[in-house]
Amino acid sequence: MRTAYQEQLEALTNVLGEMCELAGTAMSRATQALLQADLAVAEEVIGDAERMTRLSARAEEQSFALLALQAPVAGDLRGVVSGFQIVADADRMGALALHVAKVARRRHPAKALPEEVNGYFAEMGRLAVTLAKSAHEVLETRDPQAALRLQEDDDAMDDLHRHLFTVLMDREWQHGVAAAVDVTLLGRYYERFADHAVLIGRRVVFTATGKTPEQFQNIG
Amino acid sequence: MRTAYQEQLEALTNVLGEMCELAGTAMSRATQALLQADLAVAEEVIGDAERMTRLSARAEEQSFALLALQAPVAGDLRGVVSGFQIVADADRMGALALHVAKVARRRHPAKALPEEVNGYFAEMGRLAVTLAKSAHEVLETRDPQAALRLQEDDDAMDDLHRHLFTVLMDREWQHGVAAAVDVTLLGRYYERFADHAVLIGRRVVFTATGKTPEQFQNIG
Repeated sequence: MRTAYQEQLEALTNVLGEMCELAGTAMSRATQALLQADLAVAEEVIGDAERMTRLSARAEEQSFALLALQAPVAGDLRGVVSGFQIVADADRMGALALHVAKVARRRHPAKALPEEVNGYFAEMGRLAVTLAKSAHEVLETRDPQAALRLQEDDDAMDDLHRHLFTVLMDREWQHGVAAAVDVTLLGRYYERFADHAVLIGRRVVFTATGKTPEQFQNIG
Repeated sequence: MRTAYQEQLEALTNVLGEMCELAGTAMSRATQALLQADLAVAEEVIGDAERMTRLSARAEEQSFALLALQAPVAGDLRGVVSGFQIVADADRMGALALHVAKVARRRHPAKALPEEVNGYFAEMGRLAVTLAKSAHEVLETRDPQAALRLQEDDDAMDDLHRHLFTVLMDREWQHGVAAAVDVTLLGRYYERFADHAVLIGRRVVFTATGKTPEQFQNIG
């Protein structure tokens, strides 16, 4: 019984990890589409969105099966409950990558971004992909220290996001209101993507230790 | 045993309902603060945010207790799992109301909104509050038909949000980039608030029927 449970939990973890990978890949390609006004790549991201929906449904089914059939306790119970929450986070990360791809498609053949903010988005894209990979890794290792470190990349994302606003608010901004609106929303999509990766890290800490990150850090 | 379980589930439902009410009240007052540049009201919303954190923690504890002690099955199991997801949605609604209040505080004593978009935000605020109330109601009644109707108010929110963008993108926009950035983010906060209320409705449908809203509607 115990072994069957572990196998099922591992299968769930694999699907959750796959969702994080998929979100990271989607954000990587959406960023490419955005920076290069590459319609084909944008369409690929949009076409792939359905895969995330299927993985979400599978992960939820697996989680229900684990709860219903195995009646887990303590750490296992936290793991399954976190599973449901991580599905929602990874699914949202995929949706945010999709939003980026759709902006790229909407503005094509023009570039959505004025040249001067390309560097910000290239770096925010890099951080987003790193965070998705880290989320996948800590799901597998269940290492609470590594899970806490996702916060650091998110801090870097928040810094970039703040700087981006100073560029936008500068009187020298020459690109008009429409470009400013796009940049504002796009910046928000990357920032929220990072927030959800951090939430996955928080849930891993809770599953592994039974503590919130704040409680865990005060002890460690 | 059965009765104790029902009592605990009812206690959880009460806390979730309270979270929706709190989110609705926060959004109502945040909108007032925004439209009238009322610093005192903005500060009240910001000061109250901690209450939502406490309610979230309590609802999660109650959900874990239900799962661990009662080993629920079928509809009950769906109800408890939905509980965890609804905590996250209601918590996020509160965070979005907080964002609105913070914009009002940041721009005080100036108004964050140009006069010409006040009407949009008054109406988006009204819809947001209605959606929070409806989410609370369907949590209590568990009526799947009523839960589906949250989608209609969300459609109205999406329409307003789209119109708001046409105002922003209009060449006649005279309020500069900084105001456009504020309006863009604020519009997004209201829209996402509504999305989370709809998600609560979806989870009520699933709890009550075991079906997604799409599956349920195809049958009904």
